[in-house]
Amino acid sequence: MSGNTFGKAFAVTNFGESHGPAIGCVVDGCPPGMELSEADLQPDLDRRRPGTSRYVTQRQEEDRVEILSGVYEGRTTGTPICLLIRNTDQRSKDYSEVARKFRPGHADYTYLEKYGLRDPRGGGRASARLTAPMVAAAGVAKKWLKQKYGTEFRGCMQQIGDVEIPFESWDHVLHNPFFAPVANVAKLEAYMDELRKSGDSCGARLRVTATNMPVGLGQPLFDKLDAEIAYAMMGINAVKGVEIGAGFGCVTQRGSSHGDSLTPTGFATNNAGGVLGGISTGQDLEVSIAIKPTSSILVPRETIDIDGQPTQVITKGRHDPCVGIRATPIAEAMLALVVMDAVLRHRAQCADVLPPLTPLAASVG
Amino acid sequence: MSGNTFGKAFAVTNFGESHGPAIGCVVDGCPPGMELSEADLQPDLDRRRPGTSRYVTQRQEEDRVEILSGVYEGRTTGTPICLLIRNTDQRSKDYSEVARKFRPGHADYTYLEKYGLRDPRGGGRASARLTAPMVAAAGVAKKWLKQKYGTEFRGCMQQIGDVEIPFESWDHVLHNPFFAPVANVAKLEAYMDELRKSGDSCGARLRVTATNMPVGLGQPLFDKLDAEIAYAMMGINAVKGVEIGAGFGCVTQRGSSHGDSLTPTGFATNNAGGVLGGISTGQDLEVSIAIKPTSSILVPRETIDIDGQPTQVITKGRHDPCVGIRATPIAEAMLALVVMDAVLRHRAQCADVLPPLTPLAASVG
Amino acid sequence: MSGNTFGKAFAVTNFGESHGPAIGCVVDGCPPGMELSEADLQPDLDRRRPGTSRYVTQRQEEDRVEILSGVYEGRTTGTPICLLIRNTDQRSKDYSEVARKFRPGHADYTYLEKYGLRDPRGGGRASARLTAPMVAAAGVAKKWLKQKYGTEFRGCMQQIGDVEIPFESWDHVLHNPFFAPVANVAKLEAYMDELRKSGDSCGARLRVTATNMPVGLGQPLFDKLDAEIAYAMMGINAVKGVEIGAGFGCVTQRGSSHGDSLTPTGFATNNAGGVLGGISTGQDLEVSIAIKPTSSILVPRETIDIDGQPTQVITKGRHDPCVGIRATPIAEAMLALVVMDAVLRHRAQCADVLPPLTPLAASVG
Amino acid sequence: MSGNTFGKAFAVTNFGESHGPAIGCVVDGCPPGMELSEADLQPDLDRRRPGTSRYVTQRQEEDRVEILSGVYEGRTTGTPICLLIRNTDQRSKDYSEVARKFRPGHADYTYLEKYGLRDPRGGGRASARLTAPMVAAAGVAKKWLKQKYGTEFRGCMQQIGDVEIPFESWDHVLHNPFFAPVANVAKLEAYMDELRKSGDSCGARLRVTATNMPVGLGQPLFDKLDAEIAYAMMGINAVKGVEIGAGFGCVTQRGSSHGDSLTPTGFATNNAGGVLGGISTGQDLEVSIAIKPTSSILVPRETIDIDGQPTQVITKGRHDPCVGIRATPIAEAMLALVVMDAVLRHRAQCADVLPPLTPLAASVG
Repeated sequence: MSGNTFGKAFAVTNFGESHGPAIGCVVDGCPPGMELSEADLQPDLDRRRPGTSRYVTQRQEEDRVEILSGVYEGRTTGTPICLLIRNTDQRSKDYSEVARKFRPGHADYTYLEKYGLRDPRGGGRASARLTAPMVAAAGVAKKWLKQKYGTEFRGCMQQIGDVEIPFESWDHVLHNPFFAPVANVAKLEAYMDELRKSGDSCGARLRVTATNMPVGLGQPLFDKLDAEIAYAMMGINAVKGVEIGAGFGCVTQRGSSHGDSLTPTGFATNNAGGVLGGISTGQDLEVSIAIKPTSSILVPRETIDIDGQPTQVITKGRHDPCVGIRATPIAEAMLALVVMDAVLRHRAQCADVLPPLTPLAASVG
Repeated sequence: MSGNTFGKAFAVTNFGESHGPAIGCVVDGCPPGMELSEADLQPDLDRRRPGTSRYVTQRQEEDRVEILSGVYEGRTTGTPICLLIRNTDQRSKDYSEVARKFRPGHADYTYLEKYGLRDPRGGGRASARLTAPMVAAAGVAKKWLKQKYGTEFRGCMQQIGDVEIPFESWDHVLHNPFFAPVANVAKLEAYMDELRKSGDSCGARLRVTATNMPVGLGQPLFDKLDAEIAYAMMGINAVKGVEIGAGFGCVTQRGSSHGDSLTPTGFATNNAGGVLGGISTGQDLEVSIAIKPTSSILVPRETIDIDGQPTQVITKGRHDPCVGIRATPIAEAMLALVVMDAVLRHRAQCADVLPPLTPLAASVG
Repeated sequence: MSGNTFGKAFAVTNFGESHGPAIGCVVDGCPPGMELSEADLQPDLDRRRPGTSRYVTQRQEEDRVEILSGVYEGRTTGTPICLLIRNTDQRSKDYSEVARKFRPGHADYTYLEKYGLRDPRGGGRASARLTAPMVAAAGVAKKWLKQKYGTEFRGCMQQIGDVEIPFESWDHVLHNPFFAPVANVAKLEAYMDELRKSGDSCGARLRVTATNMPVGLGQPLFDKLDAEIAYAMMGINAVKGVEIGAGFGCVTQRGSSHGDSLTPTGFATNNAGGVLGGISTGQDLEVSIAIKPTSSILVPRETIDIDGQPTQVITKGRHDPCVGIRATPIAEAMLALVVMDAVLRHRAQCADVLPPLTPLAASVG
Repeated sequence: MSGNTFGKAFAVTNFGESHGPAIGCVVDGCPPGMELSEADLQPDLDRRRPGTSRYVTQRQEEDRVEILSGVYEGRTTGTPICLLIRNTDQRSKDYSEVARKFRPGHADYTYLEKYGLRDPRGGGRASARLTAPMVAAAGVAKKWLKQKYGTEFRGCMQQIGDVEIPFESWDHVLHNPFFAPVANVAKLEAYMDELRKSGDSCGARLRVTATNMPVGLGQPLFDKLDAEIAYAMMGINAVKGVEIGAGFGCVTQRGSSHGDSLTPTGFATNNAGGVLGGISTGQDLEVSIAIKPTSSILVPRETIDIDGQPTQVITKGRHDPCVGIRATPIAEAMLALVVMDAVLRHRAQCADVLPPLTPLAASVG
């Protein structure tokens, strides 16, 4: 059984390869009657797009999304919405060296062992390019959630390589190429230029949140909201760690301070990160993820070829020295898809439970 | 849509509440023909069981599992296997105080808001008691995987509260009540006794691994093996963070050292944690999780009642000062279920791909 | 991937074998807050029960259902509901002859080929006994649908073997052992006594309906309401044909008379059987199914044994000369489960579409 | 939860509307390594295509399929295969009258009630045009099954309106526009010309079979092979009845003749239609379906408009007087998709069961 569909009630089926004719997805389960057009989806795609600064890969893809179905006279019909993005700037020749070699840190080896063959061009199906359709699909979800609950999704960088980034304000995030919540990014620019020259790459830590969250989302025991969040985040290319709320900081906390006290006007703290018992509390969702350093680097690496012989490999071509930089809109997108799916699933079972049931839920959500 | 089934090909449907008549699960999809009896499952349940040392909750449950279906003349038939565990030591009276109050850090508030009502006894459906059926189900998976591939699952504590636990050897894990891989646990005992007296609780960090892993497991893009692992782990009660391989350590790594070099006899390192591109490499799976401090403590906490009025709550009764101590067999169990499901799903699509395809896979798996 | 779960939003996972310790199911997704007890479920089980007349199998099973989870203080909690039925009257010795032979018309051969082994006692997993948990689960659905919409499910026999049964009134159905909608069943009794003496069996045609149906149920393109009905019905043991509305009578109809005209107070006819474009119209659901003659008969049949050698087989023991007689509550149950699942799925996507949208829907539903 | 994905292991997600820019599907789960190109899929689409004779709708669609992903250097990669078919001959102006009216027998009323809005052009999502992507997807399945097992799928007409069509030979089916298995179709031509002139329509009965079937397919209890077949067939536009094997003929059969005897060289008869206990026997699958008369006719019909006022409606434009004529390749396609999905699901669980296990299976499959 393959696994190319994300979500159960708001189900997004993704298709395409990095260097194929097109990539895209089919969104099945969108509530009918919402106004929708390409203009709703393009901005997030532009934020994610490669080639927008010298700090990211130089592949020039326009990433223009087309809506092929599911919308009539500007409104969603409740039928599946196919979103298509044509690939226009594939340069297959840059990958000739790697066809016979396994690049360390890449999926070359595993795809060959699993499927018996692989598409080596631009990472094939394993390319981060396949996050573009998810960002498009999330545009649909974000619009609906915003209209329905006022829910919004925002992400920012917490750390790039060795450089920790303090949080000053969300206002700065859209004004620098690092999605950094600080006014002055000179330090980051210098760090990244240095890295680029070295031909190496670094990791990143990224924070993504949701505000104006409805209470009651999540389907215990296994489709808990935090479990689905972890599933969505760890599934993003290059992610190796996921935390909710206090995350690994919990280890040294005491129960007397970890548990968020409830007051008549809300929770006193948010160590829970917005989820208790796998269900949303109405608090902001707080998620942090670790993104590994890109394995596509100009530094030679020791490896073997498909015959098992030792060799070296250098990945020429266009690369991200820090893929984390472009992961922010992707992480926001995946979080939005998780929440959207959770809302519809909650409705399936609990549509007759009339919220809010307690004064707390009434005052804060 | 509810979410009480874990897995798609090896699907485990869990039922029960902490203080109901019984808990259990139905395992659907087990390959036929394997010898199976309660004796295969009981040992792991005994490891997980409450009441086994003074460091864990004092509820005395025998946790005897019964196989109600799916086995004929000692062999699995391929039909669903129902595993039942009767609750015998429920003490509902200890929870009288909390019926009207929301305990901080617990699911009381969220269950009420989601469902409109809740079973307050022993945490109801949100209780960690519901991990017992998963441990039983995993016993089936572990046996099959061991026979088929030699795959084994092991976990140990890395940290309890402020006390870091170095790794000496797996041999020690079964010889102390902390699943600690060290010979001398006097420091831990002292720490825990202190904590118990204080009525408070602490968090923990736990490591779980799988050895003799087959190559090629995992279903990109969304049911990647690491995504499923994160989903399974974050879904365990009290987990707030999940890492694979180098995890959050990736942030400060460079691509030139993070990517594990391949050699004719295997991978040189294991920063990947056994997964690349969402597919198993044959390397050991390496997972680390963060478990929050128990919210059921004797220290009074500020909260509100169901009318929104400020109040205090103390959770009397029997509690774990560090739930992480008993999480080890649970984390092993969930990892085994993920791998089992992945094997069957891989077979569905790729049964005709004849491994191993390269000399590397032949030499190490 | 196994297939022992029926439904996606109201999901019923069935377990057990005819001669195992117990049979049962887990119902996942039931809306919370509904009053529920065994007394709600037992009556339908009693209607289905074997041993209630000389026209059906003489196995004496009490079929007492126990609710093991999902209910607290008499109300559903939204957590999974496990329903257990203990087997008490297994008589394995009656099946000794067939262990090595393949009974024509039975699943003996196919289960062996698929799983490599089989439980020969009483048909094992293939036994119609496994419909009992579905009848119990449907009791939950029927209660909810009745309260919510007034929807009711009723079935009756249309034909037993060569004897066509005209429809006089629903009032008669519960007053004879044939679920026949006629006052005088003497003809049927004579026919059945004759058949019993001969040791042979006959087929049956059965009608099942739903009244007070909500409009808008069904999830095109593939989970259309009629497709799900066909799936549910054909999956019942011994069913070989399913019709909706005019069914096979459509073949000779003209479009000018088949299509049901709409009037301000409802549809003029019901050739559609309550479904158009895969979505419920508000008209009664009208379904008819064909049930094959039981293959467990006392007449000797030619067959082969497991070594491929020609032989004869006679099935001794307790059998139904017409399994169709007891299929009525089963067909009602499966129809109720389909409708319940469809309601919850419709809510997931379309909870904001406020019905009724047209005067027609307002006047008739 | 929407329902636009068919299958679980070989999952086909369909998108598009009759008059939208394009229709298509995503095939997820195809085994890797098989040669595949558009040339494998186009022939079946051509057989299904409208405008190929004067007996079917005159809409001229080329139905050229494009493979957008999942194939590299002419072989399937195991990644999702997106198949796209552009709509080129939409003529929306012919549907102006019906936008405000509900055509009897059509999905106009139900789509509006379910979704709150509808696309009236050409039936929107309810159009039979959406079967084209399924025929394309089935081309992939048919090729794989043919190579692997020699399995083939064939369909033919059994009856058109009042005209019964005897079976002479499969050889005739491709040589007349009716998929009729007879040499001389003059009678059918005359019947159809008469019908066309009258502006009315008729129903049809169609047979579809599979030969060289592997044994052991089907996932009891609910995803039995015959249940999945019924689900697939009843889901085809305009189908109102489905039979397997003896079908409704079972009602009057006796158990002593219905059950197919087994002999050392095969089954003596095939009343089972190739399925016993929900699992394939190796016998040919035999399915018969009833297709209702088209509701798009030139005869005026009584109905209501969206305000509930009585009115009349005539459907101008291009229509099929007997949609059954073109249903043959669609029914073959759906049957192939069911079998393909069943093969992969059987492998997931039973890959280690080595068939054939008995001399019978060895001699006939």
